[in-house]
Amino acid sequence: MKNKFYQYIQDLQNTITSKLEEIDGEAKFREDLWERPEGGGGRTRVIENGKVFEKGGVNISAVHGKLPDTMQKMFGVDEADFFACGLSLVIHPKNPFAPTVHANWRYFEMYSPPKGGGSKNEKNFPPSGGLRRAWFGGGQDLTPYYLFEEDAKHFHQVSKAACDKHDSKFYPEYKKKCDEYFWNAHRNEARGIGGLFFDYLKATEDLPAGRQGKSMEDWYNFVTEVGDSFLDAYVPIVEKRKDIPYTDQNRKWQEIRRGRYVEFNLVHDKGTLFGLKTNGRIESILMSLPPHVQWVYDHHPETGSEEEKLTKVLQHPKDWV
Amino acid sequence: MKNKFYQYIQDLQNTITSKLEEIDGEAKFREDLWERPEGGGGRTRVIENGKVFEKGGVNISAVHGKLPDTMQKMFGVDEADFFACGLSLVIHPKNPFAPTVHANWRYFEMYSPPKGGGSKNEKNFPPSGGLRRAWFGGGQDLTPYYLFEEDAKHFHQVSKAACDKHDSKFYPEYKKKCDEYFWNAHRNEARGIGGLFFDYLKATEDLPAGRQGKSMEDWYNFVTEVGDSFLDAYVPIVEKRKDIPYTDQNRKWQEIRRGRYVEFNLVHDKGTLFGLKTNGRIESILMSLPPHVQWVYDHHPETGSEEEKLTKVLQHPKDWV
Repeated sequence: MKNKFYQYIQDLQNTITSKLEEIDGEAKFREDLWERPEGGGGRTRVIENGKVFEKGGVNISAVHGKLPDTMQKMFGVDEADFFACGLSLVIHPKNPFAPTVHANWRYFEMYSPPKGGGSKNEKNFPPSGGLRRAWFGGGQDLTPYYLFEEDAKHFHQVSKAACDKHDSKFYPEYKKKCDEYFWNAHRNEARGIGGLFFDYLKATEDLPAGRQGKSMEDWYNFVTEVGDSFLDAYVPIVEKRKDIPYTDQNRKWQEIRRGRYVEFNLVHDKGTLFGLKTNGRIESILMSLPPHVQWVYDHHPETGSEEEKLTKVLQHPKDWV
Repeated sequence: MKNKFYQYIQDLQNTITSKLEEIDGEAKFREDLWERPEGGGGRTRVIENGKVFEKGGVNISAVHGKLPDTMQKMFGVDEADFFACGLSLVIHPKNPFAPTVHANWRYFEMYSPPKGGGSKNEKNFPPSGGLRRAWFGGGQDLTPYYLFEEDAKHFHQVSKAACDKHDSKFYPEYKKKCDEYFWNAHRNEARGIGGLFFDYLKATEDLPAGRQGKSMEDWYNFVTEVGDSFLDAYVPIVEKRKDIPYTDQNRKWQEIRRGRYVEFNLVHDKGTLFGLKTNGRIESILMSLPPHVQWVYDHHPETGSEEEKLTKVLQHPKDWV
């Protein structure tokens, strides 16, 4: 499964970066291959200063080795070996009317440590201990600076359609989880208008008694269905908004809102903090941060403005489909 | 002591904001008075878009009530009442050759809970339980975007002189603590060129056996000596640098480095995180964030450049006096 899914995200990275380059028309992704000293590595692709995309990263990685202490604590396990691979993307368009988008699809395997303890380096991988647990996780969410209800509906509709092909319970559940996860608690508002968020998608035999799962093959089909839907969810929106004329005031608002994006990612986002505190590749993790950002003391949008309309929806996440 | 120290920081806030307005020559501080629902409040003063100061806050607060759960854990105590007051300031000049400065001086009291548990609101303050512990904390540190060694020396010399009037061991100890505290671990570099950092300055009888303290009166004299030295430490530097001509490239570098300031404050700074997670006044806490900030993927200064000279010093904090 891990080889199959890693092949999938390699192909998906190619598909997504090709399409985004085509939309931009000017800038190209720069590619950085990197290695993780403790095992594995990644392929980071970043686009900057494009005609449409001011900054964006579409990164894949596949890492393995001894489960770091912080993850042992997180998962409530002792020493173990692990494998993790995934695709993470964040795209910040230049035009304030075009939304920022984030997506991530990942697969995790954890193994019983071989006799004598977990492997300490690449040579011991795959470990002699057996597969203990495996799961998928991920999602996709949209962060507009101005609210176009039709865009929010479109993004959610495409996400829902991908879910519904597998289980009609998925969309309501993962939409709710997304609203909960991307909650900027200290601001008492959502980061954006949501989408999907799922984690620990495990086979039935790995779940607590009574909880119904699917086979890992089923989960693979579901997660790749969502991954395949990403461009359908996002591209029509950015195509529609990328050339709308905008003012300095629109731009200022976008930069202020991007500050909230930074706040979420650095204060609340488990993935970012986990990466920063476990010696991940910093530049690949922080490619998610927007290019130009402002913090203005005690800024509030004018009553009745388009800016205020957005903040009201962020304070009270709604159902879009 | 708490009334005496709160009076001191009220006066110091006036002194500092007057002087900074005089230097700026155009912008004035805006004042916001705020109340904390659980007890106490503050006086926030923010300057924005000045001729010299692009953004800055000089805030005081005095809060009290039931010790929040997160602080109980931090201090390893059960239910208790507390009082805390302090002055916090962060100043971001516009000119990339003028450094950002941060300072904070604070006083904390913790009380045994009255019989029947800690007070839940203002009416129960001061509590019937007795004073259990009291301490001072604080410091001041400088974050340049271009390194002028004479500025770093001046800032440290003034800080050292204030320390030396009280104990010759203070400066080496608090300088070292400052380098350790303002360490941007995920970037493996210091936030700036340091200064002073001290905490838990307690009376001898409140310290573990064998550790020598001072009387609270002595600590008051020390902390206010440092507070009084702040303008001497910072003003000559900003006066000297505020009118140096600069290019777009200098400005870009400043904005990229300000990104590191944001990263430190949101990822590592205990004070900021504590405020965000305990329902502090968000706008007063986040006034520390710089006005205009950039994140550029994998940015490195040119070999041999002034920008590189700064980063080398940040990676290996040095002794300035």
